[in-house]
Amino acid sequence: MSTAGQVIRCKAAVAWESGKPLSIEEVEVAPPQKDEVRIKILFTSLCHTDVYFWDAKGQNPLFPRILGHEAGGIVESVGEGVTDLKPGDHVLPIFTGECKECPHCLSEESNMCDLLRINTDRGEMINDGKSRFSINGKPIYHFLGTSTFSEYTVVHVGQVAKINPEAPLDKVCVLSCGMSTGFGATVNVAKPKKGQSVAIFGLGAVGLAAAEGARVSGASRIIGVDLNPSRFELAKNFGVTEFVNPKDHNKPVQEVIAEMTGGGVDRSVECTGSIQAMISAFECVHDGWGVAVLVGVPNKDDAFKTHPVNLLNERTLKGTFFGNYKPRTDIPAVVERYMNKVSLPSCLSILSLYTSTNKKQH
Amino acid sequence: MSTAGQVIRCKAAVAWESGKPLSIEEVEVAPPQKDEVRIKILFTSLCHTDVYFWDAKGQNPLFPRILGHEAGGIVESVGEGVTDLKPGDHVLPIFTGECKECPHCLSEESNMCDLLRINTDRGEMINDGKSRFSINGKPIYHFLGTSTFSEYTVVHVGQVAKINPEAPLDKVCVLSCGMSTGFGATVNVAKPKKGQSVAIFGLGAVGLAAAEGARVSGASRIIGVDLNPSRFELAKNFGVTEFVNPKDHNKPVQEVIAEMTGGGVDRSVECTGSIQAMISAFECVHDGWGVAVLVGVPNKDDAFKTHPVNLLNERTLKGTFFGNYKPRTDIPAVVERYMNKVSLPSCLSILSLYTSTNKKQH
Ligand SMILES: NC(=O)c1ccc[n+]([C@@H]2O[C@H](COP(=O)([O-])OP(=O)(O)OC[C@H]3O[C@@H](n4cnc5c(N)ncnc54)[C@H](O)[C@@H]3O)[C@@H](O)[C@H]2O)c1
Ligand SMILES: NC(=O)c1ccc[n+]([C@@H]2O[C@H](COP(=O)([O-])OP(=O)(O)OC[C@H]3O[C@@H](n4cnc5c(N)ncnc54)[C@H](O)[C@@H]3O)[C@@H](O)[C@H]2O)c1
Ligand SMILES: [Zn+2]
Ligand SMILES: [Zn+2]
Ligand SMILES: [Zn+2]
Ligand SMILES: [Zn+2]
Repeated sequence: MSTAGQVIRCKAAVAWESGKPLSIEEVEVAPPQKDEVRIKILFTSLCHTDVYFWDAKGQNPLFPRILGHEAGGIVESVGEGVTDLKPGDHVLPIFTGECKECPHCLSEESNMCDLLRINTDRGEMINDGKSRFSINGKPIYHFLGTSTFSEYTVVHVGQVAKINPEAPLDKVCVLSCGMSTGFGATVNVAKPKKGQSVAIFGLGAVGLAAAEGARVSGASRIIGVDLNPSRFELAKNFGVTEFVNPKDHNKPVQEVIAEMTGGGVDRSVECTGSIQAMISAFECVHDGWGVAVLVGVPNKDDAFKTHPVNLLNERTLKGTFFGNYKPRTDIPAVVERYMNKVSLPSCLSILSLYTSTNKKQH
Repeated sequence: MSTAGQVIRCKAAVAWESGKPLSIEEVEVAPPQKDEVRIKILFTSLCHTDVYFWDAKGQNPLFPRILGHEAGGIVESVGEGVTDLKPGDHVLPIFTGECKECPHCLSEESNMCDLLRINTDRGEMINDGKSRFSINGKPIYHFLGTSTFSEYTVVHVGQVAKINPEAPLDKVCVLSCGMSTGFGATVNVAKPKKGQSVAIFGLGAVGLAAAEGARVSGASRIIGVDLNPSRFELAKNFGVTEFVNPKDHNKPVQEVIAEMTGGGVDRSVECTGSIQAMISAFECVHDGWGVAVLVGVPNKDDAFKTHPVNLLNERTLKGTFFGNYKPRTDIPAVVERYMNKVSLPSCLSILSLYTSTNKKQH
């Protein structure tokens, strides 16, 4: 019996107030409208961004809200005008979208779609400025256009990647955020050459995936940098060959790395969100050819500060967002690489194990 | 009668003290030693770097010294081990060198030779730590390894570009510093695509050459930014299509440019040395794909400061030195392009006219 066109009643974890435990509620999920897709969420994991907005420090609080953005599911029904997805398709909803029409979507270099790039303030759908979630008629806000802490959710078609139906959704769901962000930051942006040295700042999920990107690129040395020494053991599985804890040294970590490498690493990828790590990640690359890539989300009042001679000496500094992947165009192929064991093979299993405490299966 | 192997007595402009007028003196120029070349300088021009070190504010003063580094001449004799140059060759001495053996020289990306990169503190030759210039036995310091304000000078072979003998030395001498720096910053580093928009900060010799680089790359709009409005007329000859004077606006110039271009220019090249212009040049490029290139030499205490989100939004920031050209490998071809009128054709004539007040012909 089809549910298409009907309101669906299902369970969702609702954040009623900032910092208060989520509560499982029965919610109504309206049918998808023009250019929207309703998805049955099968697996979702928890990312720091969810916690950050649940905590709502330093932002305008928007509650009640259904958080969640790292997930995998199956299309239940599609709204008017949706032609490239149909009920039954396996999909990853993604926090940033791709309209395929704006200058960013048409550019080979950008994935920052004018229409659908991440918007943490928006709590409603773009079409009509309304929510598709409600409890007894009272609307509940969306989050990042994904709101995956719900058995069913409605997402703009531009934020849905259609993937190989054979892919295990419980594993590939982590490709919808941090894993692709870190892996893409290395392979799409830092682009280390075979035999080069790479420093990874921050060995959380994003940094581990960045290290895996360096490993598959054939990096000769992968130097992991973290304030937490317990990360090193795990990081070895992702190719990290050496570990530096800034706390173990009296001098700035960029100087420690310069000494270890005869002047600096060839590439660095910052995955911490700490402004100090961003500056160190930049200053630790070799003059002449070094490339530093920033991934971490900084605080509102942070300032990136360096002597301009560090730039003049032919270093390159770049930032990236979702690893420069376009969600609809590129993510299906990332899943495919995983299926063909070209990259991320063991690493996804380890990571899904590692984040299993975070995972909530419906 | 050959002068090879002999001390040559000739005229040179000697800076005896910081900020005091240069005085024309008879100097003795010793023969070139191992890996050195003695050059008869035919044309030399004056660059801001000469003035800066003559003024010696903010550096350790090193006097008496023979300044000068933008020049053209003919090889008089060569020292031991020099095989790729011979007396009579037409050459440009260059302030930064290429040993062809260090990691930078072997890298495709860098031109910051470990042995011969610019060293403003060194006043002697590398071989023996001694000067080749003297007056009555008292040594006179070298400058940038070139010291072209002399009828004869001794230069390390790694700092000598051998060029087409048909090239007019009075014109191509400006390719040994600012012109190549600006032109290369655009074509080698910023690399605008056909039809893209480019902002050039600073319309001095370096900025005009950077604009010419944008013009030959097929840029659709070339926005010149300078505090001095009189630069615009001249700049039109180098392809500049629009002019912005930051003084004419109440808001930061990066916002003015973002409004003119629907979000920012595709590329920017900073050629001022002003830290404020460096920051503006970075912040005025479009998110998603914009690339900003810094060329100007900053002050010692300057700090480049921006919000890291400007980077995260997929902008790229790079610095360059001598337009990323390798002096021996690349400059002969730059001269060739000029000879074949592929680029810099009218612009060198205009520029040599424009800088003619600076030119000293022996
Ligand atoms: N740009 C994007 O598209 C995007 C996407 C997802 C996540 N992120 C950001 O990436 C960053 C990493 O995410 P995560 O989920 O891996 O976080 P995480 O908290 O799991 O890992 C961060 C790691 O960085 C380490 N760290 C913190 N400060 C450090 C410092 N000064 N020096 C060295 N190590 C330091 C921590 O000890 C921790 O191990 C976060 O800022 C997150 O917001 C960005
Ligand atoms: N990186 C290298 O290899 C290299 C080589 C040669 C020169 N340089 C540097 O390039 C810079 C330019 O050299 P030049 O010979 O053309 O100098 P210049 O003095 O002839 O020109 C600089 C121009 O910048 C303008 N300007 C200054 N501050 C500005 C601001 N805040 N906004 C807009 N315009 C501003 C000035 O009005 C002037 O027209 C200098 O800093 C020089 O030291 C670098
Ligand atoms: Zn996330
Ligand atoms: Zn778009
Ligand atoms: Zn110069
Ligand atoms: Zn070298």
